[in-house]
Amino acid sequence: MAAQDTKLSFRNDYSEGAHPRLLQALAQIGNEQNAGYGLDRHSELAAGMIRTQIACAGADVHFLVGGTQTNLVAMAAFLRPHEAVIAADSGHIATHETGAIEATGHKVLTVPTPDGKLTPALVQGVLDAHSTEHMVRPRLVYVSNTTEVGTVYSKAELTALRALCQQHGLYLYLDGARIAAALAVAGNDLSLADVAALTDAFYLGGTKNGALLGEALVIVHDALKSDVRFIIKQRGAMLAKGAVIGAQFQALFRDGLFFDLATHADAQARRLREALVAAGIAFAFDSPSNQLFPILPTSVVEQLEDKYEFHRWQPHGQGYQVIRLVTSWATSETAVEAFCKDLAVLLAPASATQETH
Amino acid sequence: MAAQDTKLSFRNDYSEGAHPRLLQALAQIGNEQNAGYGLDRHSELAAGMIRTQIACAGADVHFLVGGTQTNLVAMAAFLRPHEAVIAADSGHIATHETGAIEATGHKVLTVPTPDGKLTPALVQGVLDAHSTEHMVRPRLVYVSNTTEVGTVYSKAELTALRALCQQHGLYLYLDGARIAAALAVAGNDLSLADVAALTDAFYLGGTKNGALLGEALVIVHDALKSDVRFIIKQRGAMLAKGAVIGAQFQALFRDGLFFDLATHADAQARRLREALVAAGIAFAFDSPSNQLFPILPTSVVEQLEDKYEFHRWQPHGQGYQVIRLVTSWATSETAVEAFCKDLAVLLAPASATQETH
Amino acid sequence: MAAQDTKLSFRNDYSEGAHPRLLQALAQIGNEQNAGYGLDRHSELAAGMIRTQIACAGADVHFLVGGTQTNLVAMAAFLRPHEAVIAADSGHIATHETGAIEATGHKVLTVPTPDGKLTPALVQGVLDAHSTEHMVRPRLVYVSNTTEVGTVYSKAELTALRALCQQHGLYLYLDGARIAAALAVAGNDLSLADVAALTDAFYLGGTKNGALLGEALVIVHDALKSDVRFIIKQRGAMLAKGAVIGAQFQALFRDGLFFDLATHADAQARRLREALVAAGIAFAFDSPSNQLFPILPTSVVEQLEDKYEFHRWQPHGQGYQVIRLVTSWATSETAVEAFCKDLAVLLAPASATQETH
Amino acid sequence: MAAQDTKLSFRNDYSEGAHPRLLQALAQIGNEQNAGYGLDRHSELAAGMIRTQIACAGADVHFLVGGTQTNLVAMAAFLRPHEAVIAADSGHIATHETGAIEATGHKVLTVPTPDGKLTPALVQGVLDAHSTEHMVRPRLVYVSNTTEVGTVYSKAELTALRALCQQHGLYLYLDGARIAAALAVAGNDLSLADVAALTDAFYLGGTKNGALLGEALVIVHDALKSDVRFIIKQRGAMLAKGAVIGAQFQALFRDGLFFDLATHADAQARRLREALVAAGIAFAFDSPSNQLFPILPTSVVEQLEDKYEFHRWQPHGQGYQVIRLVTSWATSETAVEAFCKDLAVLLAPASATQETH
Repeated sequence: MAAQDTKLSFRNDYSEGAHPRLLQALAQIGNEQNAGYGLDRHSELAAGMIRTQIACAGADVHFLVGGTQTNLVAMAAFLRPHEAVIAADSGHIATHETGAIEATGHKVLTVPTPDGKLTPALVQGVLDAHSTEHMVRPRLVYVSNTTEVGTVYSKAELTALRALCQQHGLYLYLDGARIAAALAVAGNDLSLADVAALTDAFYLGGTKNGALLGEALVIVHDALKSDVRFIIKQRGAMLAKGAVIGAQFQALFRDGLFFDLATHADAQARRLREALVAAGIAFAFDSPSNQLFPILPTSVVEQLEDKYEFHRWQPHGQGYQVIRLVTSWATSETAVEAFCKDLAVLLAPASATQETH
Repeated sequence: MAAQDTKLSFRNDYSEGAHPRLLQALAQIGNEQNAGYGLDRHSELAAGMIRTQIACAGADVHFLVGGTQTNLVAMAAFLRPHEAVIAADSGHIATHETGAIEATGHKVLTVPTPDGKLTPALVQGVLDAHSTEHMVRPRLVYVSNTTEVGTVYSKAELTALRALCQQHGLYLYLDGARIAAALAVAGNDLSLADVAALTDAFYLGGTKNGALLGEALVIVHDALKSDVRFIIKQRGAMLAKGAVIGAQFQALFRDGLFFDLATHADAQARRLREALVAAGIAFAFDSPSNQLFPILPTSVVEQLEDKYEFHRWQPHGQGYQVIRLVTSWATSETAVEAFCKDLAVLLAPASATQETH
Repeated sequence: MAAQDTKLSFRNDYSEGAHPRLLQALAQIGNEQNAGYGLDRHSELAAGMIRTQIACAGADVHFLVGGTQTNLVAMAAFLRPHEAVIAADSGHIATHETGAIEATGHKVLTVPTPDGKLTPALVQGVLDAHSTEHMVRPRLVYVSNTTEVGTVYSKAELTALRALCQQHGLYLYLDGARIAAALAVAGNDLSLADVAALTDAFYLGGTKNGALLGEALVIVHDALKSDVRFIIKQRGAMLAKGAVIGAQFQALFRDGLFFDLATHADAQARRLREALVAAGIAFAFDSPSNQLFPILPTSVVEQLEDKYEFHRWQPHGQGYQVIRLVTSWATSETAVEAFCKDLAVLLAPASATQETH
Repeated sequence: MAAQDTKLSFRNDYSEGAHPRLLQALAQIGNEQNAGYGLDRHSELAAGMIRTQIACAGADVHFLVGGTQTNLVAMAAFLRPHEAVIAADSGHIATHETGAIEATGHKVLTVPTPDGKLTPALVQGVLDAHSTEHMVRPRLVYVSNTTEVGTVYSKAELTALRALCQQHGLYLYLDGARIAAALAVAGNDLSLADVAALTDAFYLGGTKNGALLGEALVIVHDALKSDVRFIIKQRGAMLAKGAVIGAQFQALFRDGLFFDLATHADAQARRLREALVAAGIAFAFDSPSNQLFPILPTSVVEQLEDKYEFHRWQPHGQGYQVIRLVTSWATSETAVEAFCKDLAVLLAPASATQETH
């Protein structure tokens, strides 16, 4: 399955290398000598910048390589063997991590949702079904923001989940692989400080927001902090040259770059969305962030694939296909314009044809 | 435990960032769009270069982030639940991976060795002690080259282990975190092609030889190849931007850089060793590579620590200490000269004092 | 939660100790000396009787203690780490084993079903959703017969599942905790020989069919046979005095006792069912075996609970409750008659009341 | 490997079925209806009898099937993923459980000992070698009493271990598969109440002391008590008919049977030992309990094997063999006499031959 690198890609937000300011940060550590395993000054400074940004001086910050790794380290560290995670059935840990959580011994209890978001009622349903020692004990609620279908949580929604979790002794964990894209959405009312106040742990995604690699696991709840570095090492997740991630996060949290990159990605998606809406295209999910799920005629999809890369998400009835378009910090306006233009051309006759029937 | 970054460090070979040619390779992918998860052209080209170098066209090559991660992915992929690994009791998987192999469910059976190296007799002893289903079944022999105490395997030694393994249906796996340093040792008679011919799987270490991060897992034995990408993903070891490692290995295997960097590291160690020998210092291990284990008076060690960083390895009787000195691709001749000079000054009075007794 | 042992219990089919002929078999081994760990002559003879019964001379037979243990040993032995099980969402391994399968590292993929039974279409749906190395690989289909809601598979249904499994390289595994009850159902067209011919592995339940404890894991597919005793030992499932189970299975398969006990249990359930039907009661599941799921007015349920023990299965709308009634090899006709009589009395006014509306 | 059931066996203490009083107890529950999963009145009464015997009203008691199962349930319940067990390298969990502890994810750190017993100094050595997050964290000390080589701990020895454990935050766990045999040794100064006072958890072995099956896990330390029933269920260790074990432990702790059976076993071993000593035979271990390890000429061993069953433990130089002789609650005086007599005959010419050299 060779990569078709010559097409313009809307396949994901991790196709491009890294933002120039991050590459520059890496070049600067090239000749330094740094302490290993995340104990270097870059990691320490970056952790401090994150603590300031989330307004939580007591948080523990660990820099890890990728999202699946971060999720599995967290679950392995936070849960006893019989304790389980509750997630939407579209949750990344449930569907796209090759059973990484189960490989640490924990069950993922899933709930169908229309929009990828958990609600207190959905979580309560899982709790109601688990009452004895013949079943796993639900202990941690996993949410993603943005979700895997591009939707976002409002502050009220996250607050309501938090209240239910506290009532039942559940931890609330937020997968922030695309948290920058979530917070940059127009109309979003959540801040990173809110996230820190409302969850017990979460992570800030770097890989999908301009870094070569790197996620920052933030642990707020004191009970979850102990011995996490042991678990990181045990799971093969402790980077020898930790400064590689630390230096990138320093760059991301200097002068708001973390947010600027996501704002750019969301803006490009908005332009795509407006063009699609204008062309009368419907969407499988109402996603305001940098992932779009338009429903297109299969013939149009096939023609688009000659010039562009993107995921075919799922079939949608006879002759239609949901595709996923993702924009990133590196998506150029030129690329968006080209796509919109090509799409318009392709749709014009298609609709014309449809109209004649 | 803040890093003392201002001292000259002989603490390890992963203190420095990356060789300029690797940083340049990373900068070049900065603006490219690449396929994710190791399916990019850089990873494919680098894998091809490695296959050529090891003279094994059929080998599978997977790029992973670090050594512990590579070891645990390999054991999880290669072994059934009741199968165990045999290792020297100084082996990295036995001592310095926080039980990563056990966390995948497998026992590590250890054997004491004087020099960190397994022999057929030592392996046979473990086999003899494991005969029934009430015990784990030894299935894979783990060796490191260089070993954790800087020693190296000769071609004859590895060939003898290989013969025993074939006789008993054992896999032979070589941890090559420092394989470049092993092959660059003066008098070494092993080539990468030999390693590929004599083992079932091994890895080529990048982190300790000039890369920001990255190890190349090479699988030679067909029976071990299937579904390894599933295991990589499941263990959180699949890098979204796989080109980050692929591009670095392209640079390492272009024009022999991989070997040149190790030759430099070994040469600096040789100079250190010669200076120590000249000063009458004994060593805990007879290591010809880039790790040295001199036995020094504790008072000298303390004074050296004012200006240099290194590991205190273990106490050595009353008033003496084994330390570990490690050189790297980035160790400057100036640093080595400075250390030798300071050491000479410190030892002069020390020996004088000793001589008066 | 103290046991209310003085009420008549329809709670389950493992309330009573063991059939007299099994107790007698245990008494007989009381003074014998037997080889340990299942290598005794009783276990060997019992295994032979089972091989004869299932008409499969090459099958491996392992005697284990309980159902959850048998399931987890089988999954640990049969699957590689990234391979997953497909089960009905009511499957015992999915709901009532406290995550035992996940604790061995494997994901259980569940499918909603109306009647607890998997179909080729349901399995195909799971296969369609799992296509890449970012997801687990479905490898084994788990069915229960009887199912957890008392339904049974026909020979045609099992044959169809088998065909799909063979087409896609899936193993078919049958949880036979209540297989005797399934085969004893009036109209059943499956034999134990059919089960052996259509599945790759299955187990014959003793605990719920007259034994103090004990299940017989039967492995038909050669690829699944190797080293299973290692896995049994590793999971703490190897009984030191294996003859304890072997002797009971000898007794169960002598003169058809295994089938006679289930026939008795099913017959008692049929009498209960007929009484319930006659009283106009509906059922949550159409179960022909020894588990019944009538929908009763909550007030009736409460009154029944004064004299009888049974599970409240789930609420059923306002004022109604599904309960589970289970009969066993030891259920007396007297007990069934008493229950029917009490029920008739309780329902009489209730239906009267209903009729007035 | 068919069992040679016709020879007299000194192979182990679990060859015979069960003591008549236990078989009678099982027959009595044959027609009762009991609550499942260990919540029956027999288990509750037996737990109460044990609490009285150990003088620890607050202890939790769980009835499990076998020793490996009990050990793995305890380790899975008590330890976080990076926490390790310290054991003698002859410890059952280290050698004869097919990696059961590692299969729960935990490393077993082993120490060579001359007599199977841990000491504070040996434990301290392991602690000294484990200082950072790159290594597992030793958290629980595992001792067996009797040990696997038949030796026993004195009260002073256990008290000293306890003190070290408390000093370093280690749990002390005692594997009591043969604890009755340990306490019945002449001169023993430990009581079950002492064991409860000095350890955090331990188990009382039934299988090797007259039961068909069954071990009683006793948890003394409050921090270890929570949710253990979940772990028991998850590991397939929750017996549906828990009364099967409960009723046997009722019988064992009624009128001191538990101790009487072990006293008988130890007495038979003492007679064997005296005969061996009188014949000038040396022992590999100085074991005062029901396991003996005499060093015999291989020719004698071979002749004994015609009439008796026992383990060949290990070779002992040229022409000699250590064998293991085990007596049990069921070993008859006749059997011991027969063995002694045969041995005397065999040794007579053998010593004669030796003397001529």
